Amino acid sequence: MSTQPRLVEVRQNVLKQNDLLARSLRARFQEAGVFVVSLVSSPGAGKTTILEKMLTRLQYEGVRVAALVGDLATENDAARLSRSEAPVRQITTGTVCHLDAEMVQRSLVDWEIEQLDCLFIENVGNLVCPSSYDLGEDLRLVLLSVTEGEDKPLKYPTIFNTADVAVLTKMDLAAAVEFDLDQARANVQRVRPGMPLFEVSAKTGAGMDEFMTFLAARSTKLLIAHG
Amino acid sequence: MSTQPRLVEVRQNVLKQNDLLARSLRARFQEAGVFVVSLVSSPGAGKTTILEKMLTRLQYEGVRVAALVGDLATENDAARLSRSEAPVRQITTGTVCHLDAEMVQRSLVDWEIEQLDCLFIENVGNLVCPSSYDLGEDLRLVLLSVTEGEDKPLKYPTIFNTADVAVLTKMDLAAAVEFDLDQARANVQRVRPGMPLFEVSAKTGAGMDEFMTFLAARSTKLLIAHG
Repeated sequence: MSTQPRLVEVRQNVLKQNDLLARSLRARFQEAGVFVVSLVSSPGAGKTTILEKMLTRLQYEGVRVAALVGDLATENDAARLSRSEAPVRQITTGTVCHLDAEMVQRSLVDWEIEQLDCLFIENVGNLVCPSSYDLGEDLRLVLLSVTEGEDKPLKYPTIFNTADVAVLTKMDLAAAVEFDLDQARANVQRVRPGMPLFEVSAKTGAGMDEFMTFLAARSTKLLIAHG
Repeated sequence: MSTQPRLVEVRQNVLKQNDLLARSLRARFQEAGVFVVSLVSSPGAGKTTILEKMLTRLQYEGVRVAALVGDLATENDAARLSRSEAPVRQITTGTVCHLDAEMVQRSLVDWEIEQLDCLFIENVGNLVCPSSYDLGEDLRLVLLSVTEGEDKPLKYPTIFNTADVAVLTKMDLAAAVEFDLDQARANVQRVRPGMPLFEVSAKTGAGMDEFMTFLAARSTKLLIAHG
C-alpha cells in the first residue's frame, strides 16, 4: 500500500522518541537506586500470577517493591496484585498493544521512587509489539507457558531477542500438555544463544527459589534483603 | 510524544486503504463462491491444531479446502497443516504483528480460488492488533484456550468485538487449570452480547461436531458436503 513506507517512517520517529525517553527514565531509576524488571508474554502466560508471588515474597524479605501493570482494559490485575500489599498501579492502554516509556513516565509522576528498591512493570499480553519499546528497565523477562507449545521462541524471535531472561511458566502442566522441555530449551538457545532460562510453577512453587536467587544476584538492592 | 498524532493519522490512512482492499477481496471471494473463515487468538491457543482437524475433516467430506497461515517467522504451521493434504501457504510477516488484506491478496495471486469451497486464514498469534485489519473474510473466529484464563474477553475486548464467533479451546485441560466456564461464558456475553460460543477440545474431539455443524450452517458450500 502506498502509505506503508510513510507509516514505517513515522513509526521509526516514534520509536526514536521512545528510546530517548527510555534512556532518561533509566537514568532516573539508577539515580533513585531502584532496580526495574519488566515482564512480557502472551495473554494468559502467567505474568500476574508470578508477579504476585514475587511481590509477596520480596515484601516479606523486607525489599520495598511496587508494580505497574498494563492492560488494554480492566483494573483486574492491579486488584489481584494489591493482595500482595505492595503499591500497584494499573495502566490501561485502550487499544494500544504495548506499554511505552511515556506511559511509564506518566504513571510515575507523583510517585517517590527513591523509596523503592525494586519496581516491576507488567506489559500488555502480546508476544510481538512490546519488543520494540524500551521502558528503561534493567532486566526484561519473557515468559512462555508450557501450554503455548515449545515452538514459540522460533515463531516470535524478536521478543526473545530483546529480552534478557526467559521463564517457562506453568511447569505443573507440562506432562498434561506433553511439553517437550528439551526442544523448548533448544529453541530458546537457537534464537538467543546463552539466554538464561528458568522453569517455574507459580502454583506449586517449583523453581521459584532458583529464579528469585538469580534475580537477587542481579541487584544489590535485592541481594541485601536476601543476604 | 509529539509525533504520536501524526502516527495515528498515518495509521488511519493505512487502515482505510486496508478496508478498501478487504472490500474488493470480499467481492472476489463471493464471486468465486469461496467461503472464507479467519482465526485469531493469542500465541499457542490452538489455532493450528483445530485448523488441522477442520481441514482433514472437510477434505474427507468432499469439501475443497485450503489455508493461508500467518507467522512472524518459520514455516512450521504450513508444514504441520500439509499433513491434512489440503493446499496450504505460509505468510511470514517478519516483524509485522498481524496479517493485512494486501498480504492475503499477494499470497493468492496465482491461486485459482474458484476451485475452492472454503479458505481458512490463520492470523499471527496476537490478541490485539489483528482486530484492526479486515481480511475480507466471511467469518472471524476468536479462539481462547482455557489455560489463558476466563478474564481475557474483558481484558482484550476489541478482538472479541470484531470477531463473529468465540471458540474455547483445550477444554480437556479445563479441570487441571480450574477454569471457571460459567465466568468465561458471562465475560464473553458481557463484551459481546449474543456472541456464539463453542467449547471444544481438538485433542479429544469433544465439541467438534457441534462446532462443525454450526460452520456448515453458515455456508451452503459446506452444507452440501454435510448434507
